[in-house]
Amino acid sequence: MFVIIVYDVGEKRVAKALKTCRKYLNWVQNSVLEGEISDVNLKKLRAEMEKLIDSEVDSVILYTWRTQKYSDREIIGLEKGGISNMI
Amino acid sequence: MFVIIVYDVGEKRVAKALKTCRKYLNWVQNSVLEGEISDVNLKKLRAEMEKLIDSEVDSVILYTWRTQKYSDREIIGLEKGGISNMI
Repeated sequence: MFVIIVYDVGEKRVAKALKTCRKYLNWVQNSVLEGEISDVNLKKLRAEMEKLIDSEVDSVILYTWRTQKYSDREIIGLEKGGISNMI
Repeated sequence: MFVIIVYDVGEKRVAKALKTCRKYLNWVQNSVLEGEISDVNLKKLRAEMEKLIDSEVDSVILYTWRTQKYSDREIIGLEKGGISNMI
């Protein structure tokens, strides 16, 4: 499965959110990560994010595609992340 | 065509970037917008973003899909944007 995750969380939780997402996905920019992920790991990621956010103020969006990656990803300006950011 | 755009731009350019993207797409969170867009409007959006960013420090990522929307979009926590944010 291909996933893009974007989060908008309180400052206190930013570092933890990034660390959690990076366990499963590749960082691409600011609060955006993407990557191939198994169903099991997606479940784990979702559970960990649910646990760490404050659901009254934070927002996390998970875009998932069962069958295909995006057909194109285009960068305007700097490429901040990249596949070299894998753990 | 379905597009997700995420930007990470200097503070001075944030408002302008958002305003530009909102002309074509729906705001979903922080610096993330999405929506259906025509080839012509995608060209315009790309050109406007190229013009307004500082390509030495800013980053804009355009994910595009020719044929299909994401298969799922899941929100953990708050839904900050939404289809009501259309112009």
